[in-house]
Amino acid sequence: MVKPVYILNGPNLNMLGKRQPEIYGAQTLDDIARQCKSKAKELDLDVEFRQTNDEGELVQLIQNAREGACAIVLNAAAYTHTSIAIHDALKMADIPIIEVHLSNVYKREEFRHKSFVSPVANGVICGFGAHGYELALDAVVKLI
Amino acid sequence: MVKPVYILNGPNLNMLGKRQPEIYGAQTLDDIARQCKSKAKELDLDVEFRQTNDEGELVQLIQNAREGACAIVLNAAAYTHTSIAIHDALKMADIPIIEVHLSNVYKREEFRHKSFVSPVANGVICGFGAHGYELALDAVVKLI
Amino acid sequence: MVKPVYILNGPNLNMLGKRQPEIYGAQTLDDIARQCKSKAKELDLDVEFRQTNDEGELVQLIQNAREGACAIVLNAAAYTHTSIAIHDALKMADIPIIEVHLSNVYKREEFRHKSFVSPVANGVICGFGAHGYELALDAVVKLI
Amino acid sequence: MVKPVYILNGPNLNMLGKRQPEIYGAQTLDDIARQCKSKAKELDLDVEFRQTNDEGELVQLIQNAREGACAIVLNAAAYTHTSIAIHDALKMADIPIIEVHLSNVYKREEFRHKSFVSPVANGVICGFGAHGYELALDAVVKLI
Amino acid sequence: MVKPVYILNGPNLNMLGKRQPEIYGAQTLDDIARQCKSKAKELDLDVEFRQTNDEGELVQLIQNAREGACAIVLNAAAYTHTSIAIHDALKMADIPIIEVHLSNVYKREEFRHKSFVSPVANGVICGFGAHGYELALDAVVKLI
Amino acid sequence: MVKPVYILNGPNLNMLGKRQPEIYGAQTLDDIARQCKSKAKELDLDVEFRQTNDEGELVQLIQNAREGACAIVLNAAAYTHTSIAIHDALKMADIPIIEVHLSNVYKREEFRHKSFVSPVANGVICGFGAHGYELALDAVVKLI
Amino acid sequence: MVKPVYILNGPNLNMLGKRQPEIYGAQTLDDIARQCKSKAKELDLDVEFRQTNDEGELVQLIQNAREGACAIVLNAAAYTHTSIAIHDALKMADIPIIEVHLSNVYKREEFRHKSFVSPVANGVICGFGAHGYELALDAVVKLI
Amino acid sequence: MVKPVYILNGPNLNMLGKRQPEIYGAQTLDDIARQCKSKAKELDLDVEFRQTNDEGELVQLIQNAREGACAIVLNAAAYTHTSIAIHDALKMADIPIIEVHLSNVYKREEFRHKSFVSPVANGVICGFGAHGYELALDAVVKLI
Amino acid sequence: MVKPVYILNGPNLNMLGKRQPEIYGAQTLDDIARQCKSKAKELDLDVEFRQTNDEGELVQLIQNAREGACAIVLNAAAYTHTSIAIHDALKMADIPIIEVHLSNVYKREEFRHKSFVSPVANGVICGFGAHGYELALDAVVKLI
Amino acid sequence: MVKPVYILNGPNLNMLGKRQPEIYGAQTLDDIARQCKSKAKELDLDVEFRQTNDEGELVQLIQNAREGACAIVLNAAAYTHTSIAIHDALKMADIPIIEVHLSNVYKREEFRHKSFVSPVANGVICGFGAHGYELALDAVVKLI
Amino acid sequence: MVKPVYILNGPNLNMLGKRQPEIYGAQTLDDIARQCKSKAKELDLDVEFRQTNDEGELVQLIQNAREGACAIVLNAAAYTHTSIAIHDALKMADIPIIEVHLSNVYKREEFRHKSFVSPVANGVICGFGAHGYELALDAVVKLI
Amino acid sequence: MVKPVYILNGPNLNMLGKRQPEIYGAQTLDDIARQCKSKAKELDLDVEFRQTNDEGELVQLIQNAREGACAIVLNAAAYTHTSIAIHDALKMADIPIIEVHLSNVYKREEFRHKSFVSPVANGVICGFGAHGYELALDAVVKLI
Repeated sequence: MVKPVYILNGPNLNMLGKRQPEIYGAQTLDDIARQCKSKAKELDLDVEFRQTNDEGELVQLIQNAREGACAIVLNAAAYTHTSIAIHDALKMADIPIIEVHLSNVYKREEFRHKSFVSPVANGVICGFGAHGYELALDAVVKLI
Repeated sequence: MVKPVYILNGPNLNMLGKRQPEIYGAQTLDDIARQCKSKAKELDLDVEFRQTNDEGELVQLIQNAREGACAIVLNAAAYTHTSIAIHDALKMADIPIIEVHLSNVYKREEFRHKSFVSPVANGVICGFGAHGYELALDAVVKLI
Repeated sequence: MVKPVYILNGPNLNMLGKRQPEIYGAQTLDDIARQCKSKAKELDLDVEFRQTNDEGELVQLIQNAREGACAIVLNAAAYTHTSIAIHDALKMADIPIIEVHLSNVYKREEFRHKSFVSPVANGVICGFGAHGYELALDAVVKLI
Repeated sequence: MVKPVYILNGPNLNMLGKRQPEIYGAQTLDDIARQCKSKAKELDLDVEFRQTNDEGELVQLIQNAREGACAIVLNAAAYTHTSIAIHDALKMADIPIIEVHLSNVYKREEFRHKSFVSPVANGVICGFGAHGYELALDAVVKLI
Repeated sequence: MVKPVYILNGPNLNMLGKRQPEIYGAQTLDDIARQCKSKAKELDLDVEFRQTNDEGELVQLIQNAREGACAIVLNAAAYTHTSIAIHDALKMADIPIIEVHLSNVYKREEFRHKSFVSPVANGVICGFGAHGYELALDAVVKLI
Repeated sequence: MVKPVYILNGPNLNMLGKRQPEIYGAQTLDDIARQCKSKAKELDLDVEFRQTNDEGELVQLIQNAREGACAIVLNAAAYTHTSIAIHDALKMADIPIIEVHLSNVYKREEFRHKSFVSPVANGVICGFGAHGYELALDAVVKLI
Repeated sequence: MVKPVYILNGPNLNMLGKRQPEIYGAQTLDDIARQCKSKAKELDLDVEFRQTNDEGELVQLIQNAREGACAIVLNAAAYTHTSIAIHDALKMADIPIIEVHLSNVYKREEFRHKSFVSPVANGVICGFGAHGYELALDAVVKLI
Repeated sequence: MVKPVYILNGPNLNMLGKRQPEIYGAQTLDDIARQCKSKAKELDLDVEFRQTNDEGELVQLIQNAREGACAIVLNAAAYTHTSIAIHDALKMADIPIIEVHLSNVYKREEFRHKSFVSPVANGVICGFGAHGYELALDAVVKLI
Repeated sequence: MVKPVYILNGPNLNMLGKRQPEIYGAQTLDDIARQCKSKAKELDLDVEFRQTNDEGELVQLIQNAREGACAIVLNAAAYTHTSIAIHDALKMADIPIIEVHLSNVYKREEFRHKSFVSPVANGVICGFGAHGYELALDAVVKLI
Repeated sequence: MVKPVYILNGPNLNMLGKRQPEIYGAQTLDDIARQCKSKAKELDLDVEFRQTNDEGELVQLIQNAREGACAIVLNAAAYTHTSIAIHDALKMADIPIIEVHLSNVYKREEFRHKSFVSPVANGVICGFGAHGYELALDAVVKLI
Repeated sequence: MVKPVYILNGPNLNMLGKRQPEIYGAQTLDDIARQCKSKAKELDLDVEFRQTNDEGELVQLIQNAREGACAIVLNAAAYTHTSIAIHDALKMADIPIIEVHLSNVYKREEFRHKSFVSPVANGVICGFGAHGYELALDAVVKLI
Repeated sequence: MVKPVYILNGPNLNMLGKRQPEIYGAQTLDDIARQCKSKAKELDLDVEFRQTNDEGELVQLIQNAREGACAIVLNAAAYTHTSIAIHDALKMADIPIIEVHLSNVYKREEFRHKSFVSPVANGVICGFGAHGYELALDAVVKLI
């Protein structure tokens, strides 16, 4: 049986749809999860969709992915810019990794331009809102 | 019924009174909690006083404040200087936010001069020890 | 009648398939053009596919897009990192702009981490080789 | 007899209420002086309230405070960020010093984030408008 | 009756014609004042021409201009590069502000390339010697 | 016979009046050309008015000016901030050079504060819109 | 009874032996724990060997060490370079602290050259693989 | 038949002998071309000698060299310091590349000390005027 | 008749002997003035000894020195590190200038290591307390 | 016969025990030599213990080690932070290299945080005083 | 009689041929000396070929060259990047100076990109291995 | 019997009078030695006057001074700006140290503005040519 794609979401993404809709859109994270699952079905993929506010838990989920997943789609949110621990966890994962951001981080504050995820990801998709997750699943199909 | 003020305390503040009294004073965090509650009563406020060493938990508490509190008084301690996750959580809170530090952080190491809390707080109070929390509660009254 | 998507390619991309296949893959630019056209047909889009080594000409093509195109997919290659002229041309385009790179530029030299395109693009897709252009066309459909 | 608290105000604060009310509020400096005096009376303090546009005069006032005041509440405005002369004058004052800013300077231009006052002040209060002066007087009572 | 244009000159400009003529020309400040008055008459403007070595006084003159002048032509000389107090005073002036320098400051020491006046001025004219003041008066006519 | 003044315009200025009128005004480049010619006639000058999006062509036009023009009025637009080639071409021109910008570049992004033109120009005029070209022609008369 | 040495291990060290053996060697963390215990016995020390991916938990373990341990041997892994919270916890520990790294961090990425642990540790041992822990225990004996 | 050496010259070198002879000497580019041809004959080499002010054209010439030349001698002049496009073109050339400068660029402005050509060239020769081209041809003989 | 040496003292030096004797010694500024006069008599010099807290006044005194003094001995104190206005005034003085500091500024805060006086002074004497003024007078004799 | 370990000591280490005992301890370099020899005997190693104040001589000793030693234990003292020559010599040594410092250099001045030795050493041991040499010998045994 | 060319070689060049042949080639320094002498004979030059690991001795040799040599060919190796003493010695030499490096230093570590020799040399030749010395001798002939 | 003052001179000072007299004056180092001895006699001091081009030897001389001298007058020339070894040697000397420079180093290249001697010297005297040594001897008398 085929392993699922892990779609992992970092801090504050559980608040989606509740804040700053002009930046992140009106969808909730549940909406996005549903959208991903439907897209995955279409692509004959299985997905495991998770969110956490905790850096250590995100590290753990990435470590689990190494055995349990065929690919990682990661929106590490704020931890993208500060977490070497996540960088190190990704480095050992040995499966395709796709970095996703809802907003175009390069249009925002300087401190969001540095990513510790990018140098250990296969590719980056940002600025397309929830649709970015779907594009990432498309990319997964090509990479696995 | 009126919502309480969340007074949130970051890492190592549970050790107050046990270390470096020349910087932080001899009071324990319990002493400060008691002092805050007494001051709050005087101002007809309710307070919820919490401490955690965990960045993710602090993010969660701030998210809760959005619904459950009328204001946040935040001493994020070390996470002040490194946590974009906390910055993001505060940004969506939509209630008054007051940053407090016991010591005058601008007299200390260079790396304590940068705050990710300040740009999303209403105001900052630092250097007045435990009394700073009381001043913050006074400020809350004016802001709500 | 619907306007085409301009797919614009910058300096040295005409050499694709002839150099460093470990970074850029074995496909030539003609292969990619064909692939884009086939994908476009599938999405009911029209595409205009162009390459130039000349900064001024790229500026001109972007200016033309303002009137003649429904969206721009831009792989500005080396000019991504140095051209304010392209930045300015994109700023006035008023149509969706998607930045594409074949390789994950964040894994390469420091001077490729700065993009003058990103802050004026809707979104960025990088690191997926030629497939990135197809993802960009998918994104165009959502944006127009 | 008890010495007064010197409340010293730097350049352009004489224009308060006449400019940028969205940043500084609608109160004039005279309003704030009145408010401080009333608060002081309540706290059994005496205050001397002064404003000057002149760096040299501000240095002089701080030197006078050393003998003539029990504490300094200082809003050095623009000189906060550029004046080592004020820094040096404060350093020798040997009485409590409280730095006040009407606006939250950390939300504004980068060049307002550096303070030559902070490292020689007991504490900092900023972002609470005119109320910040009252909080400072409260703090003075605790410090003297 | 129409208000005059304030032409304000900063430190050491009273020494014009007495020093470094290869940089600043042989004219004295009085020569320039006369030239400005004659040009103003031609343009049907009134001018108030002032010089001071004192930052605080320059702040005061700019504050006065807010009520008493229709525009400011400012050669802040050395204070251009160091004075946030002048920056703040200009910010609240609400009348056209033109920054003038006799020499081309961008040809000189690095520390003269940063201006605190430019971001709050309408425009900048530098490198044309005394003639720059006349150009500034021409510009004033267009702006008021 | 007297040589003309070369008025040279860099990338994207051909789009004037078509984009961001709040920054650049509503005039087209043709309007400005007409205005310059009329002003020149008044000053008994001849002008050659050109625009190009191409750095190499701008270099060529400046080289031509060395023989064919009595002065250069240059709005190099985006190339102002990046082109050492233009800097080098100007350095050998041996005729008066005046740098013009429509907007006050010092009010805009950091990367527009650095100019490779300024250190080899006689003077700089910026922030006065199309009128800046007229002021530049006035300055030319004084310099030649 | 003598207190144990706390040997604390940060994020991803639980993956030892499973990733990048060319950098970290083939031993698992359990192998290292066994090796430490055997070495400790030899030195008449007791050890408490722990690993966590969580910054907050690591802070907690260090706080516990203050009462419960005679010394700390700390391999904070990725948190070494980012955690001021750990820095603060160590600062109040009042027992010998030895920083250990398996690899020579100074041979790796620039961002691994900065340590928030070093300035609050007694000494640093890095680059000797698992043997570094044994050397650290030797050092502990000398320090307690 | 043996392929020629491409000797490629960047912007403003067509003005040699017409400007700043104290830096570049009195020879024109034609003189240097003749000198190179004569030297080449002596070494049994063929040369193709070109100059362009255009970055895009220089990229094209380098791309052509890949097939049509046995080596490149490149004096990219101002583009040396700014062109990643030229850097990329050289990177795929797969033939010996020698960077030449007439003047010793390290004696000149800071911005001429950075070269995008050097890291992709075999070697660098600078400061020997026109003679540097002859030395480069000598070096070519050794390298091919 | 011979002109006097101007000995000019900047902000806070009027407080000498009243603060931080461990840095500046126990002498008052009057003591130093007396010492200087006695030393001057010995060297057959006349001295004019002045102190001011005001940057503008210090500029004025330096301007006066140009006509009225044979040399300047300047301890600009805090203005040393921030005043371009003083730098400019000194530049036009055309008489020997000696920079003096009581303390060794290079042992103190980073911001005291930069001097705007040094590049326009003949020489610098620092770290010898009041004796430094006497050494400066000795140096004056050699220079005039 | 087995080659000795070279224990090489840089500038000023001959003064050990004579200066700053609070940083370096009371032992002289001879004490440390004796201690090393005794430890070496225990480990069945031979040691050659040397000190020099001369960078060139230290380079020479490292070059000799390449043939004459089985490993290098190097305390390059001040040269650690400035000597590329030592870096280059170590790079070609092809035997284990261990960097030792008596004090924890990361607790000291910023300029002691950069090491040219670390990137070419196997490992680093610092902050354990003379005991660090013994730990280094232990490490040697594991590495050879 | 004609003075010789001094060919001076810095630290670790005595190890040539013994280390990292992929960077420096397989030739020993003696091979290069022989090659230089043979080339010199061809050019009717005399050479004095020296190597030292000692900065002070290299300074001395350069001082000697001032009287005893007609030109200096200098490969200062590691001291190139760190020695102001060599810079100063070269500055007073008053004879042609040619900087040579075997490898292309601009392809290597950042710290090898800064040269204290370049700004006081006539020209630079790097990246051509031992052949670079021969090119340097050719250049000497042109320069003397 | 009283110990002598060590007057120590660094690299290239042996060339004084032979180079760049516009910077260093026409006196040779022997002239300065004679002048110092005569001044010393006048002050009842004994002097030991030494020069070396060698960093290691300068370190040694400073170490000797600790026992053999009553004070050090040090002109470390180029090593001033690069030598931490000299910094360390001075730090343990425990006798007065006076830094002297013939020229005003703050008027020269940026790299001469940083001194490793200043933070460990009592005071600094620079810019007075040979006379600076005499002033230093005067200062010594006050300090011992």
